[in-house]
Amino acid sequence: MNFRINKLRFYEALTIAARAISSNSPVPALSGIKVEVSQDSIILTGSDATLSIQVTLNNANDESLGLQVIEPGSVVIDSRYLLDIVKKIDSSDIHIEIIDGTLTHFMGQKAEFRINGYRPSEYPSIEFSEPAVRFSLSPDMLNSMMAAVSFSISNKDTRPVLTGVNMQARNGSLICTGTDSFRLSRKIFQIDCPEFSVTVPARTVNEAKSIFQDQEKMSVSLSEKKIQFRSPKIIMQSTLLEGSYPDTERLIPSAFNDTLVINRSLLQAAMDRSSFIKTDNMTIIRLQISSAEDITISSKSQEIGEYNEDLSAVSYEGIPIDISFSGSYLLDAVKSLSTENVVIHFTENMKPFIITNEGDDQSVLQLILPIRTYN
Amino acid sequence: MNFRINKLRFYEALTIAARAISSNSPVPALSGIKVEVSQDSIILTGSDATLSIQVTLNNANDESLGLQVIEPGSVVIDSRYLLDIVKKIDSSDIHIEIIDGTLTHFMGQKAEFRINGYRPSEYPSIEFSEPAVRFSLSPDMLNSMMAAVSFSISNKDTRPVLTGVNMQARNGSLICTGTDSFRLSRKIFQIDCPEFSVTVPARTVNEAKSIFQDQEKMSVSLSEKKIQFRSPKIIMQSTLLEGSYPDTERLIPSAFNDTLVINRSLLQAAMDRSSFIKTDNMTIIRLQISSAEDITISSKSQEIGEYNEDLSAVSYEGIPIDISFSGSYLLDAVKSLSTENVVIHFTENMKPFIITNEGDDQSVLQLILPIRTYN
Repeated sequence: MNFRINKLRFYEALTIAARAISSNSPVPALSGIKVEVSQDSIILTGSDATLSIQVTLNNANDESLGLQVIEPGSVVIDSRYLLDIVKKIDSSDIHIEIIDGTLTHFMGQKAEFRINGYRPSEYPSIEFSEPAVRFSLSPDMLNSMMAAVSFSISNKDTRPVLTGVNMQARNGSLICTGTDSFRLSRKIFQIDCPEFSVTVPARTVNEAKSIFQDQEKMSVSLSEKKIQFRSPKIIMQSTLLEGSYPDTERLIPSAFNDTLVINRSLLQAAMDRSSFIKTDNMTIIRLQISSAEDITISSKSQEIGEYNEDLSAVSYEGIPIDISFSGSYLLDAVKSLSTENVVIHFTENMKPFIITNEGDDQSVLQLILPIRTYN
Repeated sequence: MNFRINKLRFYEALTIAARAISSNSPVPALSGIKVEVSQDSIILTGSDATLSIQVTLNNANDESLGLQVIEPGSVVIDSRYLLDIVKKIDSSDIHIEIIDGTLTHFMGQKAEFRINGYRPSEYPSIEFSEPAVRFSLSPDMLNSMMAAVSFSISNKDTRPVLTGVNMQARNGSLICTGTDSFRLSRKIFQIDCPEFSVTVPARTVNEAKSIFQDQEKMSVSLSEKKIQFRSPKIIMQSTLLEGSYPDTERLIPSAFNDTLVINRSLLQAAMDRSSFIKTDNMTIIRLQISSAEDITISSKSQEIGEYNEDLSAVSYEGIPIDISFSGSYLLDAVKSLSTENVVIHFTENMKPFIITNEGDDQSVLQLILPIRTYN
């Protein structure tokens, strides 16, 4: 392996492949980026065994790349060293050559490095073939999906399937759900695609939205085992989470007794203000509603003290209600909404309640389970 | 205690007092800010027992304060709660009243808090009297002092006196020194003041430079035990570090055999480039000089690989030299200098070498001890 390439363009591509790499991989070679050089292109691969990214660089579709291949070949180099060398080399092109086994020579103008690499045979073989089920999803859609559901996704390993976003396609809708079993967030898109239901690791969706934000085109495809995102230069894929996702449709109440319409910023400010009143690291908010003009939010902690605020709403239809819940859950939910007023539907004091944008109770839905308290 | 005050002005003052507070104080009341209200002023005190800050607010010199005292008194409130409440209260003025013992009532427009405080008697008594020895030092001088010496200050508790900046005044000079015993930084100011030698905790100097940056005037005074910084509204003081500071003058060579003049950015880039070649978490740089045109910098790590770079200097006067040292020490030293070229003076391969700005070997001096290697 022996080639020259424009330092900046190579560095950009390396940073993308490096995003898949985890700092504590059990397989040593996975701390590296696999560099495969053929006659007119370079393929870079980074992976943590769950998430894998492949970036292809070739002169044909990129003039500024300045790739000159003197001899094809491949090696795996620790991503931290590779990124550091390419970023800081003292020339605009970098010359890279294997000199002995995996010992790789990096040359700038006067600076040079000899770095120990791994053999490509030590790197796990990763299959990047494109799965059969294709559907269309844009980076902007991934952004609005994560803005609506990410905070509800569980970060506990006790039930791995809850650490992902469930995506369910049926009847022209893509229903995206996150839940940690105490709250649930749902975002629905109208798109045409075959029916499926998969759960994608949260990190995969987050990486996809950052990586493909700058790319012209993105296509998405699925199999039983993996999800793949593609642009002309980048393939990113991830294994899916195993296990059956809870039947969340069943959890969302379809009929409500009581409906509150209230100014979003007012509610958000109240949740923010009271967030330091914690018991066992949780702010328990008590919401008492008699009428639109008679709403009290309060919170109490033996150690710290108490908070109390009277609010007025735009409207309230229903019987008086007295309900307690996590203030940070309501804060997250309200921050994910966008209309001037938000709508809260209650059924009973101990049943889940849902929060939606006003005039659109379909696209984003936030559900919160109340907490039993003894006042 | 019962008063109203402009929320923003009160918040600004609280953030200054809170800077002295440590999150893990052994005395519970020191997690709080002491609020002392008299007829026409408020005194706020924050402390971690070493560093103490007092902010005085009064209507006489601040119209926008809007202080209305209904009843004098005092209380200590946890700084985190106090800052959060004042920052987020739903009105431009906040009304604060003790309602029962230390239970304190905070009122905005509709939001209110009742918070448990501490009795002022639980708060350590802190003496803010002004020490006798005054000298003049500006926030800009503190800035340039820390830029020159902060990185050399030890962060290990084994020799506490090395965790501070030594300030020594004699013959119209203020000599400021930081050392961790492997390297040393010195910055000299020409100021008129009585002779003294004290060692000030690094945190104290850093806080002083941030806090007084925005204040019109600052005066500094000293006793055997403490240093105090004053502006019309703020008093900040700190105990001094005990123990005798090493006689650093003795460590700095006064005669040199070999002198290198070299471009600063060139040297900085080389140290930066090689910084990932580490052995036992340290980058050991070997510098070999034969002449101004024949200089080699190299670094080697069994595990990672090696680095090599040929450099040319502006000039070299001396015999050939072959010296090894920590690359990150030289990087810190070079970054603290400002001239286009820097001057390095060597005596012998195993003796300390010093780096200074070109044309000014007095105001900033950086000294580095070589490392013995077996090449």
